[in-house]
Amino acid sequence: MRRGLFITIEGPDGSGKSTQIQFMKEYFEANGIPCLFTREPGGTSIGEKLRSIILDKDNAEMCDMTEALLYAASRAQHVEELIKPALDSGKVVVCDRFIDSSIAYQGYGRELGDAVRVINEYAVCGCMPDVTYLMELDPSIGKSRINADVQDRLELERIEFHNRVYDGYKEIAKLYDERFVEVNAAREKEAIRNDIIGHLEGILKDRGLLCR
Amino acid sequence: MRRGLFITIEGPDGSGKSTQIQFMKEYFEANGIPCLFTREPGGTSIGEKLRSIILDKDNAEMCDMTEALLYAASRAQHVEELIKPALDSGKVVVCDRFIDSSIAYQGYGRELGDAVRVINEYAVCGCMPDVTYLMELDPSIGKSRINADVQDRLELERIEFHNRVYDGYKEIAKLYDERFVEVNAAREKEAIRNDIIGHLEGILKDRGLLCR
Repeated sequence: MRRGLFITIEGPDGSGKSTQIQFMKEYFEANGIPCLFTREPGGTSIGEKLRSIILDKDNAEMCDMTEALLYAASRAQHVEELIKPALDSGKVVVCDRFIDSSIAYQGYGRELGDAVRVINEYAVCGCMPDVTYLMELDPSIGKSRINADVQDRLELERIEFHNRVYDGYKEIAKLYDERFVEVNAAREKEAIRNDIIGHLEGILKDRGLLCR
Repeated sequence: MRRGLFITIEGPDGSGKSTQIQFMKEYFEANGIPCLFTREPGGTSIGEKLRSIILDKDNAEMCDMTEALLYAASRAQHVEELIKPALDSGKVVVCDRFIDSSIAYQGYGRELGDAVRVINEYAVCGCMPDVTYLMELDPSIGKSRINADVQDRLELERIEFHNRVYDGYKEIAKLYDERFVEVNAAREKEAIRNDIIGHLEGILKDRGLLCR
């Protein structure tokens, strides 16, 4: 029986995930709630080694399925070594990107399909998020926030890729609407914060994790 | 459309796989049949890097599912980089252990269950063996052939593990009886050779790969 609460935050690059994670951190600290903030590979030694293989330019011949399986392997280790123990000890765990990133980026973006979901459901061994905040922002806006360069042919291809990812996210949110919370990320960061923290506070109270 | 023929050989350690592979090699060479003999990680650069992570004693904290996913990742790369191109060019490919080893050792031996089969079916992307020779030999006999030491408690545990693996192999052979050929490996190596090469010759003739 899980004692803590498992929260993930998802969405395109540039959609403001880091800012909202910082707000969550401040909120948990102000309320004395024990928490773990993590992101993959999450500081596991095995995860770091796998990450270096995935990112190594010398491994350009890596096929998409190999990459998907390596991300899943890294996730399995992250769950077993860090996330599950923290949840078992009653902590709130906030993870910057998790299983839905793989499904969106590799399943939809790289068009590997349902394989990615199935493989990753095995990888997490039932340790699914309780709540997932999806930062909804048109990927071209997210992109422009982090990269203002003029876009060439390759960049345009990337936009098509990111549009597939974004459409994927929205499909996943429908499929798992019991845990997904869709957040309009095109607003001021404080307005987004109020929505997320307001929602989170309700859950923490329900679970008896907020004592005031 | 696959032009070549994909053969795998499976069974407990010490069951004589290497000897039979050597016989196959001699047979193919004598008959001028283009072939590729391989085993995982199969000489792919990515596979070698994954292998060193799996075998590194510093990674003792690796969980079973992570290990299973890494073997599958290595296999995906092996298939894409070596096996599929060889089959497409019309070669006979002989692989010493393949998907069934993962299912037997990790699915049954480590008791990870059906996850291993599903993950590996995605990893091989439909590139399944045409024929699988299963060397049937009681694992304790196989073990005694390669290790004559007196068995301690740990060794006995290992025997239970190897018995689960062996029972797993026999179940898999029933499930996939269209490609499995069960070989009584408790006999003289020449008798086994005659069975395997006789069977193989029939298939090669059917496929038009043997011209005599």
